[in-house]
Amino acid sequence: MMAKKEGFVKQITSRDVDFSKWYTDVCLKAELCDYSSVKGCMVLRPTGTALWERIREVVDGRLKKTGHENVLMPMFLPESLLLKEAEHVEGFAPEVAWVTHGGDNELQERLAVRPTSEVLFCEHFKKIIHSYRDLPVLYNQWVSVVRWEKNTRPFLRTTEFFWQEGHTCHVDYEDADKEARMILDMYVEVCRDILAIPVVSGVKSESEKFAGADKTYTNETLMYDGKALQITTSHNLGDNFGKAFEITYSDKEGKEQYVNTTSWAITTRAIGGMIMVHSDDRGLVLPPRMAPTQVMIIPIAQHKDGVLDVAFELRDKLSKDMTVKVDDSEKQPGWKFSDAEMKGYPIRLEIGPKDIEAGHIVAVRRDTLEKITLPLDDNLNTALSELLESIHNDMFKRAKDRQKEKTKMAQTKEEFAAMVEAGGFVIAPWDGTEAVEDLVKEETGATTRCLSFDYIDADLSGVKDLWTGKDAKYMMHWAKAY
Amino acid sequence: MMAKKEGFVKQITSRDVDFSKWYTDVCLKAELCDYSSVKGCMVLRPTGTALWERIREVVDGRLKKTGHENVLMPMFLPESLLLKEAEHVEGFAPEVAWVTHGGDNELQERLAVRPTSEVLFCEHFKKIIHSYRDLPVLYNQWVSVVRWEKNTRPFLRTTEFFWQEGHTCHVDYEDADKEARMILDMYVEVCRDILAIPVVSGVKSESEKFAGADKTYTNETLMYDGKALQITTSHNLGDNFGKAFEITYSDKEGKEQYVNTTSWAITTRAIGGMIMVHSDDRGLVLPPRMAPTQVMIIPIAQHKDGVLDVAFELRDKLSKDMTVKVDDSEKQPGWKFSDAEMKGYPIRLEIGPKDIEAGHIVAVRRDTLEKITLPLDDNLNTALSELLESIHNDMFKRAKDRQKEKTKMAQTKEEFAAMVEAGGFVIAPWDGTEAVEDLVKEETGATTRCLSFDYIDADLSGVKDLWTGKDAKYMMHWAKAY
Repeated sequence: MMAKKEGFVKQITSRDVDFSKWYTDVCLKAELCDYSSVKGCMVLRPTGTALWERIREVVDGRLKKTGHENVLMPMFLPESLLLKEAEHVEGFAPEVAWVTHGGDNELQERLAVRPTSEVLFCEHFKKIIHSYRDLPVLYNQWVSVVRWEKNTRPFLRTTEFFWQEGHTCHVDYEDADKEARMILDMYVEVCRDILAIPVVSGVKSESEKFAGADKTYTNETLMYDGKALQITTSHNLGDNFGKAFEITYSDKEGKEQYVNTTSWAITTRAIGGMIMVHSDDRGLVLPPRMAPTQVMIIPIAQHKDGVLDVAFELRDKLSKDMTVKVDDSEKQPGWKFSDAEMKGYPIRLEIGPKDIEAGHIVAVRRDTLEKITLPLDDNLNTALSELLESIHNDMFKRAKDRQKEKTKMAQTKEEFAAMVEAGGFVIAPWDGTEAVEDLVKEETGATTRCLSFDYIDADLSGVKDLWTGKDAKYMMHWAKAY
Repeated sequence: MMAKKEGFVKQITSRDVDFSKWYTDVCLKAELCDYSSVKGCMVLRPTGTALWERIREVVDGRLKKTGHENVLMPMFLPESLLLKEAEHVEGFAPEVAWVTHGGDNELQERLAVRPTSEVLFCEHFKKIIHSYRDLPVLYNQWVSVVRWEKNTRPFLRTTEFFWQEGHTCHVDYEDADKEARMILDMYVEVCRDILAIPVVSGVKSESEKFAGADKTYTNETLMYDGKALQITTSHNLGDNFGKAFEITYSDKEGKEQYVNTTSWAITTRAIGGMIMVHSDDRGLVLPPRMAPTQVMIIPIAQHKDGVLDVAFELRDKLSKDMTVKVDDSEKQPGWKFSDAEMKGYPIRLEIGPKDIEAGHIVAVRRDTLEKITLPLDDNLNTALSELLESIHNDMFKRAKDRQKEKTKMAQTKEEFAAMVEAGGFVIAPWDGTEAVEDLVKEETGATTRCLSFDYIDADLSGVKDLWTGKDAKYMMHWAKAY
């Protein structure tokens, strides 16, 4: 029996052959999601939903600890409300789904299904904020939003997607900026500590920033195929929305001031990123702190006396410290091994009559497929807890090492083009003009991903933009991106 | 200072003068919700959202313990999909919000914003169910739905509202029925143990049942004004949807069978019910197990040395066993007392220099306004935990006593009409015809609320329908209802 799992039967496209097809295969075969009858909208199946609920649990806990409160705004907003902030409406109008009828009646004013809720929050803020004593207001909501997309892919880009959207109001620009940065850091920690994903944190260029923002902060990360993904963002909106919606407060001197606002989000896209960073040709690989089931017990020769009993006893014992299930279906162990690999459980435990007799079990790490024989004794909970920790740390390290390896510094535009073609981040000096961004995108497909905080104070005296030869303004991270 | 709170200043309409106005006043002044710019859609403010999150936490925990899994379906469904089950579409078509445009493009087929998701679940069930081994499928989702309503009221009837909707598939009618009943009982417990609301459980009449259901189970409860509210429902849909969507499985003999399905929900409406059962002319009264903040500490003469220190120490100490806040705003204690009453915190603690010197505090129960002096010692956590328990039990008992008192048995149709007019449940024998339901509604405004399980096996031999004199088929609960 034990030999069976060596005979690895490829169930999905290889990620080195067709990354895009591999990705969709993993999403569907690991049963994270399914297509629905509405183009671009997916069904989140139990495991996909549990992954999102896990992100929600972690982020919500951190937000509440830092004084944020949840609210729930309507999913609709009148067209006239969306029109109030010019840049914002321009950014979103092309992708809005419009409700025009309620029952048989045509609406007097059509309603947008929220593509984001800045304007709804602003309308409410105007009603509840009067004095500096009312500030800051730190709100958040967990909802879905809709953007009419032409090309959709599970998790990465769907017409409807789930997110948390934070919206806060502050006395001034600096306080808003502090909030936006604090949230960005919180996202860095969630990526590192839960998703096992390393990120490059920094600032978006003018052309890549959020519609209506003063400053967009971003966490960017590399996928297995070398393309970048913006995994979370946080915006300092300055007083743009404060002014457009006339949200004012009287300061300590009784003077009316505009509020400064922020907004920020993590979305179901982060699940797509997690898949593309960690998974492999056998299927999903879940970081242990994300996995709804951390350990899958697979009984060998389960029809034999006592095997299932030991499996269930083991489950009950381990459940104190981790999430555990037993695969007691009528399938063959070989099938169950493949299924466990496809579903990405961090550890599978194989236990059969011989193991029971010998007083041990075989633990198989999903990330490395390494087999470890462990004694079936009182130390097992600790041993497996430590193994889960190691898996998390190793997954993070591998992703970080790969990101480091795939991050290069270009000295010429030819070198830049070759590096972009090879995949990964390319760091290169840039004069800060949109003309160069357009040119680079046209020629190489790369866009500015962020001005990393590591380079924000770099001394660029004498450094020239690779394309124009003019003085460089920023040492920028570039990449092809999702 | 202490005298101030006696001087109760009426901030809202009295519930005995104008119940409807009182209700809206409580919702708005206790800051549970606010109006939005979309008619019929409300903003759930932090406390309103926390109440919904509390219901979610409790119900979700119970569903997971009974093997249910969460999923997330798209918020849109194509018109053609909605049209598949005739009764169902007839029930919902008049209240559907229609999306007709994505960006600037008119859609080929318009999309309904889900009024409920039976059809989406069915479409998915058809794809994932093949064998009896796949059954039961026990799914649930936490989302909002939209029904275009003419007359809306916060929580009770809003165009968009939040709910959990459970959808399950079973091998046969009996198994589906067991599920529907089990869920109904779970709702009874949540109402009793968390919301402190007693219910009458039973079956809906044919005319009042859910569109597409075989059988609708319901929990009905009485509001302070004597009108009934359907607080939760659970439907056995039989094989209606199984047949309409061709969801089949092969049974143990390899024969194709239609699945039987159920659906069930608790909505933000339950929060409206909670308000209308428990609150009073001073504002909201929150059952302790629902309250986001169970204890509000109000410092007296907080500018005096040490008062705030003691208040915060007390908060930290109590926080181990309950949720506690300190109102250290710059307002006067009298204002804070009224505010605490309006917001409905189950207990407020008053603590000033004299109390500290005497080594005690004053606890005021929100439900009875009773003042209790308690020693500031190590026993305080236990004393307050017990007080919270008493408040819950007393609130439930008062609601139950009132419901009992307002439930009458009518012997004649004149008596029936008078009882309905006076408010409350009226139990009366009914021949089971829709003609009588129509007549009674026309004449008295009452509708059949449910056939209570207490009367489902009642011996009705010789008992006659009050209106037709024909043999009674059911001993029915009637009432005017929300």
